[in-house]
Amino acid sequence: MKDFTHFNEEGRARMVDVSNKPDTTRTAVALSSITVNQDVYRQIQNNENKKGDVLGVAQVAGIMAAKKTWDIIPMCHPIPLKGIDISFRWKEAGEDHQLEITVSVKTKGSTGVEMEALTAASVTALTIYDMCKAVDKGMVIGPTQLLEKTGGVSSPDYKRLIEE
Amino acid sequence: MKDFTHFNEEGRARMVDVSNKPDTTRTAVALSSITVNQDVYRQIQNNENKKGDVLGVAQVAGIMAAKKTWDIIPMCHPIPLKGIDISFRWKEAGEDHQLEITVSVKTKGSTGVEMEALTAASVTALTIYDMCKAVDKGMVIGPTQLLEKTGGVSSPDYKRLIEE
Amino acid sequence: MKDFTHFNEEGRARMVDVSNKPDTTRTAVALSSITVNQDVYRQIQNNENKKGDVLGVAQVAGIMAAKKTWDIIPMCHPIPLKGIDISFRWKEAGEDHQLEITVSVKTKGSTGVEMEALTAASVTALTIYDMCKAVDKGMVIGPTQLLEKTGGVSSPDYKRLIEE
Amino acid sequence: MKDFTHFNEEGRARMVDVSNKPDTTRTAVALSSITVNQDVYRQIQNNENKKGDVLGVAQVAGIMAAKKTWDIIPMCHPIPLKGIDISFRWKEAGEDHQLEITVSVKTKGSTGVEMEALTAASVTALTIYDMCKAVDKGMVIGPTQLLEKTGGVSSPDYKRLIEE
Amino acid sequence: MKDFTHFNEEGRARMVDVSNKPDTTRTAVALSSITVNQDVYRQIQNNENKKGDVLGVAQVAGIMAAKKTWDIIPMCHPIPLKGIDISFRWKEAGEDHQLEITVSVKTKGSTGVEMEALTAASVTALTIYDMCKAVDKGMVIGPTQLLEKTGGVSSPDYKRLIEE
Amino acid sequence: MKDFTHFNEEGRARMVDVSNKPDTTRTAVALSSITVNQDVYRQIQNNENKKGDVLGVAQVAGIMAAKKTWDIIPMCHPIPLKGIDISFRWKEAGEDHQLEITVSVKTKGSTGVEMEALTAASVTALTIYDMCKAVDKGMVIGPTQLLEKTGGVSSPDYKRLIEE
Repeated sequence: MKDFTHFNEEGRARMVDVSNKPDTTRTAVALSSITVNQDVYRQIQNNENKKGDVLGVAQVAGIMAAKKTWDIIPMCHPIPLKGIDISFRWKEAGEDHQLEITVSVKTKGSTGVEMEALTAASVTALTIYDMCKAVDKGMVIGPTQLLEKTGGVSSPDYKRLIEE
Repeated sequence: MKDFTHFNEEGRARMVDVSNKPDTTRTAVALSSITVNQDVYRQIQNNENKKGDVLGVAQVAGIMAAKKTWDIIPMCHPIPLKGIDISFRWKEAGEDHQLEITVSVKTKGSTGVEMEALTAASVTALTIYDMCKAVDKGMVIGPTQLLEKTGGVSSPDYKRLIEE
Repeated sequence: MKDFTHFNEEGRARMVDVSNKPDTTRTAVALSSITVNQDVYRQIQNNENKKGDVLGVAQVAGIMAAKKTWDIIPMCHPIPLKGIDISFRWKEAGEDHQLEITVSVKTKGSTGVEMEALTAASVTALTIYDMCKAVDKGMVIGPTQLLEKTGGVSSPDYKRLIEE
Repeated sequence: MKDFTHFNEEGRARMVDVSNKPDTTRTAVALSSITVNQDVYRQIQNNENKKGDVLGVAQVAGIMAAKKTWDIIPMCHPIPLKGIDISFRWKEAGEDHQLEITVSVKTKGSTGVEMEALTAASVTALTIYDMCKAVDKGMVIGPTQLLEKTGGVSSPDYKRLIEE
Repeated sequence: MKDFTHFNEEGRARMVDVSNKPDTTRTAVALSSITVNQDVYRQIQNNENKKGDVLGVAQVAGIMAAKKTWDIIPMCHPIPLKGIDISFRWKEAGEDHQLEITVSVKTKGSTGVEMEALTAASVTALTIYDMCKAVDKGMVIGPTQLLEKTGGVSSPDYKRLIEE
Repeated sequence: MKDFTHFNEEGRARMVDVSNKPDTTRTAVALSSITVNQDVYRQIQNNENKKGDVLGVAQVAGIMAAKKTWDIIPMCHPIPLKGIDISFRWKEAGEDHQLEITVSVKTKGSTGVEMEALTAASVTALTIYDMCKAVDKGMVIGPTQLLEKTGGVSSPDYKRLIEE
């Protein structure tokens, strides 16, 4: 596909050729969060939300979103995901509560799965916002970031330093 | 990814890690049915439905549904389907007629294709219901079940005993 | 669109013209079920399935499927759903257990929502099958049928007689 | 559909009934951001990214994501969007550069469009991450939040106070 | 939404605001074609294609594509289609045969359905190509064009002059 | 799967079994075009279209469509695309201007990517039509055709002779 390049000299969009990259096991871990007030926190913890079990629904949404990342992010390659896991941890944030969302994705393919992990983390947070917005619209999502990535062949592994 | 498990100790949803499973040829066969009255039966057989060739449209719907099973069933792994085939057989059922729907799916991948076959069988039956419901809303779909499955590495082949 | 008809004299598929039908409030209720053995029953009830909370995930799957019915059933009109609710009830079935799945759908539109209710009920059952199939592949889905429908303008309301 | 409630007494998921809400003109504005280092900033501004015009592609991704919000967020009602607009503004952030992403969405429908605006803002940022991650994986997305919302009938308009 | 404009002064993409346009009945008719050689023609007419009834499958594909036009064409508004009809007519074309594909779409909405008709016509032709390409890869699709459009409020009706 | 055939003796649709075909590197190049009048040409070239950068948006649309070809073309196998590139070239066409659209697609899989290239080329042209139709509805798309294909195992490479 070395002739591919000159076709697109206008500098516009392309899904870059990865056919030379071998299939390897790759993982990525992304982190997002949502900061909520006391009322939302209590509703989630007591499972009193009238739309359902907030964290349970959000987890399903995140997993399904990871699988369609290729259809949401235009230049992202379709890749067969082998495992997705989403976990939660509450932290205090002044008078509010911050829910940390950690997403791990695993594949055996020719590109990394950073986007799948980041997309799943974002959609998990968005789903929590959706289910709780009748109580408070002031919830804040993120920051959202890549924590770690392993298994690429051309680019080295990545690990973010997070201070607690 | 051996740390995957403890992330999700809350007992909520996960798409389990199958990255250790090798790609093998796998098949699954599912069976569903729809029971219709005389009027519907005649309309289908005489190709007099105003929405089109009922069984032809249903077959296309079933095949397309098999391909998007991963987007319909939340914890289902995406898997590259290699072949899908749907066949029909009429049986008498008292004063009614029962259309048996058999779906065979084949892949070369790391998980089985039971869900693809079962989803295709269900959608084939639902499409027939949709096209004929102006005549009779009393049609009954199913039972829907797995007939047979081959090719897994950890779980044995499966074959249901059906008495005619 | 009275000229529409002659275009398609070959008897092939069409999505019939409903532009003359007014938007009215419409509801539909569909019933499906899944029959499972003791092991699966216990796993669901004790929330011990390693893929997650079985009924919770299945409910999310059913709701999301209802919303994309128009993309799954070829001749089905797209219609803005206003409410979806899915409930469960266990019944004994000899040595097995049968989980009844009831789906209610509501819209304000120009066609009925029978297909949305039936599709959601089927996908809810399929998701339960998917999450429990590692324990037993013999589970049986359905029969799946329409229980009731209200609000059409040309066709009368419908109510199925079910004997318990 | 007043019987809807008792069906779902298990406290699981539901898409709540909004059939009583009238169609009104509604708007929502959401804000997200992505913080990038000097190299990424220069590549975007000089249009030197090998995958294409970063902000142009991200805008298309955000608009398309807004339209499928109902398919990404499980309990979100499908709603016919009437207008979507996405704008960018660069701000300095220490040694880095922060790109502010503002998304405005408009509809005429029975529910608000907060989720559509928030989803579009998130996907716009995710797309920028995807296109630039070969240069730096340390980019940070968000915080993502609702800026303003108008046009509901039961809930009042909302406006967030942002200090510059 | 008069403030919408200045947000996007960079000249990038937007889905333009149509919230002021009333819902009216609108129709569009599009024309495409596929030119095939004798072998393909015979296979279609004698229903000997091993993938199925070529024109029947193509019609289903076209109808389903019309419904997801908003998800394929980035700046296209989602709109509730009320009727879709696809018809075929064979014409001789030298030694080859040309199949004319005519698609009529109807809606009651705030934008026209030209794109839905043109997309359906294109996908119908592409599906025929797919099913017959094992016989001949030289088939030519199109030209594809709008034949007629009615029902807009700001733009006049349109009718193309076609010489036979 | 040799028993597959007799299941479907009715001559209806099937997705043919390709599980015996090895994964090889495959490419396809497709050509489409859109012919526009002076006003549309000027608007595109001067980037004065109020919906955005016409060719940039169209390129994104084409790439995203290539990735979902399996969901648009019923009997098409899902296949992991490895690279997509779309380029443009203007030609004079009497008083009008013709924009040539060339799409190259690459995969490593068991079926060819002709349909992905042809679908992307069609959607690129359709998107340009959509963005410019407010100026002129008389634009003509295509002819659309396969230019070249390499890498199959059972069928030979293909190259169309085009006279300039």
